[in-house]
Amino acid sequence: MDNNFLYLRRLGIDTYQEPVVYMRHDCDICRSEGFSSQNRVQVSCGERHIIATVHMVRSDLLHHDEAGLSESAWLLLGAVEREQAHFSHPAPVESMSYVRGKLYGTPFSAEAAQAVIGDIRDGRYSDIQLAAYVAASADCLLGTQEVIAITRAMVDSGRRFDWGTSPVMDKHCVGGVPGNRTTLIVVPIVAAAGLLIPKTSSRAITSPAGTADTMETLAPVGMSFEHMRRVVESEGGCIVWGGSVSLSPTDDIVIRVERALDLDSEGQLVASVISKKVAAGATHVLIDIPIGATAKVRHAERARRLGEQLVDTGAAMGLEVRVQKSDGTQPVGRGIGPALEARDVLAVLRREAGAPADLRDRSLRIAAALLEMSGKVAAGEGAARAEALLDSGAAWKKFHAICEAQGGFSEPPRSLQQHSINAERAGVVAHVNMRSLARAAKLAGAPADKAAGIEMHVRLGEEVERGQPLFTMHADTAGELHYALDFLSAHPETLSIEEPVR
Amino acid sequence: MDNNFLYLRRLGIDTYQEPVVYMRHDCDICRSEGFSSQNRVQVSCGERHIIATVHMVRSDLLHHDEAGLSESAWLLLGAVEREQAHFSHPAPVESMSYVRGKLYGTPFSAEAAQAVIGDIRDGRYSDIQLAAYVAASADCLLGTQEVIAITRAMVDSGRRFDWGTSPVMDKHCVGGVPGNRTTLIVVPIVAAAGLLIPKTSSRAITSPAGTADTMETLAPVGMSFEHMRRVVESEGGCIVWGGSVSLSPTDDIVIRVERALDLDSEGQLVASVISKKVAAGATHVLIDIPIGATAKVRHAERARRLGEQLVDTGAAMGLEVRVQKSDGTQPVGRGIGPALEARDVLAVLRREAGAPADLRDRSLRIAAALLEMSGKVAAGEGAARAEALLDSGAAWKKFHAICEAQGGFSEPPRSLQQHSINAERAGVVAHVNMRSLARAAKLAGAPADKAAGIEMHVRLGEEVERGQPLFTMHADTAGELHYALDFLSAHPETLSIEEPVR
Repeated sequence: MDNNFLYLRRLGIDTYQEPVVYMRHDCDICRSEGFSSQNRVQVSCGERHIIATVHMVRSDLLHHDEAGLSESAWLLLGAVEREQAHFSHPAPVESMSYVRGKLYGTPFSAEAAQAVIGDIRDGRYSDIQLAAYVAASADCLLGTQEVIAITRAMVDSGRRFDWGTSPVMDKHCVGGVPGNRTTLIVVPIVAAAGLLIPKTSSRAITSPAGTADTMETLAPVGMSFEHMRRVVESEGGCIVWGGSVSLSPTDDIVIRVERALDLDSEGQLVASVISKKVAAGATHVLIDIPIGATAKVRHAERARRLGEQLVDTGAAMGLEVRVQKSDGTQPVGRGIGPALEARDVLAVLRREAGAPADLRDRSLRIAAALLEMSGKVAAGEGAARAEALLDSGAAWKKFHAICEAQGGFSEPPRSLQQHSINAERAGVVAHVNMRSLARAAKLAGAPADKAAGIEMHVRLGEEVERGQPLFTMHADTAGELHYALDFLSAHPETLSIEEPVR
Repeated sequence: MDNNFLYLRRLGIDTYQEPVVYMRHDCDICRSEGFSSQNRVQVSCGERHIIATVHMVRSDLLHHDEAGLSESAWLLLGAVEREQAHFSHPAPVESMSYVRGKLYGTPFSAEAAQAVIGDIRDGRYSDIQLAAYVAASADCLLGTQEVIAITRAMVDSGRRFDWGTSPVMDKHCVGGVPGNRTTLIVVPIVAAAGLLIPKTSSRAITSPAGTADTMETLAPVGMSFEHMRRVVESEGGCIVWGGSVSLSPTDDIVIRVERALDLDSEGQLVASVISKKVAAGATHVLIDIPIGATAKVRHAERARRLGEQLVDTGAAMGLEVRVQKSDGTQPVGRGIGPALEARDVLAVLRREAGAPADLRDRSLRIAAALLEMSGKVAAGEGAARAEALLDSGAAWKKFHAICEAQGGFSEPPRSLQQHSINAERAGVVAHVNMRSLARAAKLAGAPADKAAGIEMHVRLGEEVERGQPLFTMHADTAGELHYALDFLSAHPETLSIEEPVR
């Protein structure tokens, strides 16, 4: 037995996802094992172990008998302060040979996909290895059979619900449109119709609010696999944060690297969406693809290609997938940011005067399609049925019951600071840059500050007078409000007013 | 003007190459600018600035008015303790669009190669962006025109010698064979023949010694561009560490990521070799490709392909390139490790009894080819001329003069600890695993401990008696000697003895 032991210390350094271990360059283990910066090392505490990347420390940050762990390494290992850990060379990540093979022209086989996705799930890939995988699965390089193999491997890498019945409904929106919170309206309508719709959603990665963030201002969204099962069994539906129930756990890991590279692999997106639906136990899925210049999908042609891949891959996994295109040229509803979006949702569900019509219409259209797909509602009758369930208050009652089952309903918080942005000239609202709006909402504090964000007062094509309020910034501190306003002054293209054409 | 200033602190964390900035998650700048872990941030001190990756600190490692820098960030910025620095969002790395384009099927144009290589040189690529570039330039994806474009961009990214004359000779060995230090013998022979041979060499990345490490036990190898020029102008040749003279500076950056991915792009290797030769001002280059099961090139077919690419790319850059294949089945000479290899070199140059014949023969073969390529020596007469220059002492005299010009000759150091590994049975030396030998030499302390390493006493095919010394481990401390011996006991395949076939 060797003497490769050091005491662990939590350094509180957040390296995001890649686990990092900090070791003194002059410690016995580094010298004996030949570890140096960027090497991968296995850190073991009894049966628990992780693979981490070494960053050498050439200062007195650590004592001679200590190794530091980054936050992700600490949590992944489940370490305890001053716990003794053993350090060794990890077995090489064999599945990287498939990634190399793919780059040399060999398609991913089912076996290759299982090995790669399994190793990614287990945290065996370093960030640069993940980047090589993402590059190897970029657009031109991934065929439909490979997308199916990866989808299956992603499903197998996590837990999976089996509801013992069919149909089980689900929905997904490809994204990029702030305020598009149809999920919180569609799920209660479909569940109120007596159908199962076990919905998992994500938190924001780069946007001011994910569906899970918005839902969290109304009810808890983080729960165990078993708790989610109980909610669905009692209420027919749920809106849960997917990260808490370990469905398709590799997805977040891959997405983060894709964002950092700004490399959107269509095949990877399809595998991501379909694997989560299969893991949630769905049989019928409606996918909303908003198209717009500042949305995620910018052209009809891309939407068509993406839609085909989603349908084909879904079919291979035993899912019936239907695709709906929608307008993606401006935000949906009035609010951008968790609580402001939740207010829009409540207004629609509670049938308040002045509830945003676009959010209501989009939700009804998706709910109608789902009702018809299920076979429980005849073709052509989905719209009327969905509307009846919403207008009768059945959907609101169901939503409230789902919230209670998830841990209790509460009203969304209100911001402490507001500032109105007014039109500097009369004219017509000609363009809305959703990326700039999202950035301003984030500078104001969203999604961490639930009440922060933007409240829109105008829509595309609307005529405005000089001085008329265009939107209101919401924040919890004056400082954050200030940052957002600074950004907006520097980015007048965020919302542009033009001369009306007479 | 904003208030995005913090005081810099050197944290002494070695992240190898990627510059990292450590910022408190609750600092005003992170809140106002929306920085979070893995974001890229521009750190500016007056005119100096770098782009670094953010690691958030959630502990009291830093004061509220401080940001920490990793070693590479500190050195790249040229920072001073407690210097005030400004933090901002960097302009996006536009050239990444070429990398994405390449992954989607668009070949690298000359313009693309210039932009990508320029940004890599300037440290604008994060590690994962570098990994995506390396993946995009893997074997099957890079055509000859692209290799040429990248080679030219790599030359343009650094400084370049112009000797105002032709021929200017150079050599390169593709590597993987410990002890293959022909450079230290070839350079003085060629220079003694009155030719120019301005040789730059690399330090070890994963091996127990690079040519620059071995040379450094005999003379200084780190010097300015201008100092190297003076050495070559006075002596006709030099053996300098390439890292110190900024020829093709992107090369080390790319190689590090390739090693971590174990992804050897042939095109990238060709661009790396040829760009350094062009930058050194060479006109005629001989490239040695050792072939062997544990060498870098394992098959004759790979050597042929690589050779063709080297010749074609060289021609496009105006270089005459000739390729020689050689045996890569066992180490060259006796020593493995900087000082031990230097002793072999000195023994050959000084014509000592018992000087390693294989090192002498390989060096003479390369020198002969170079003399003939230069046109100064007639075809078929290179071997005799090279031998005469070595045997007359002219090469040794030239080598000594080059060392003096580089800063002064000194004898290589001797190790403090030795341990002999003896044959456990009689038989024939059947296999030598050069990777295991390299690993053992590194565990013994090479290349940091110059005298550490391995001294071989037998060669492939040699008959040995039981108890006969096979090789001697050299180290400076008993601990390191012990680590190396432990590794060798666990890896008996390092040198295997088999029954002789009678």
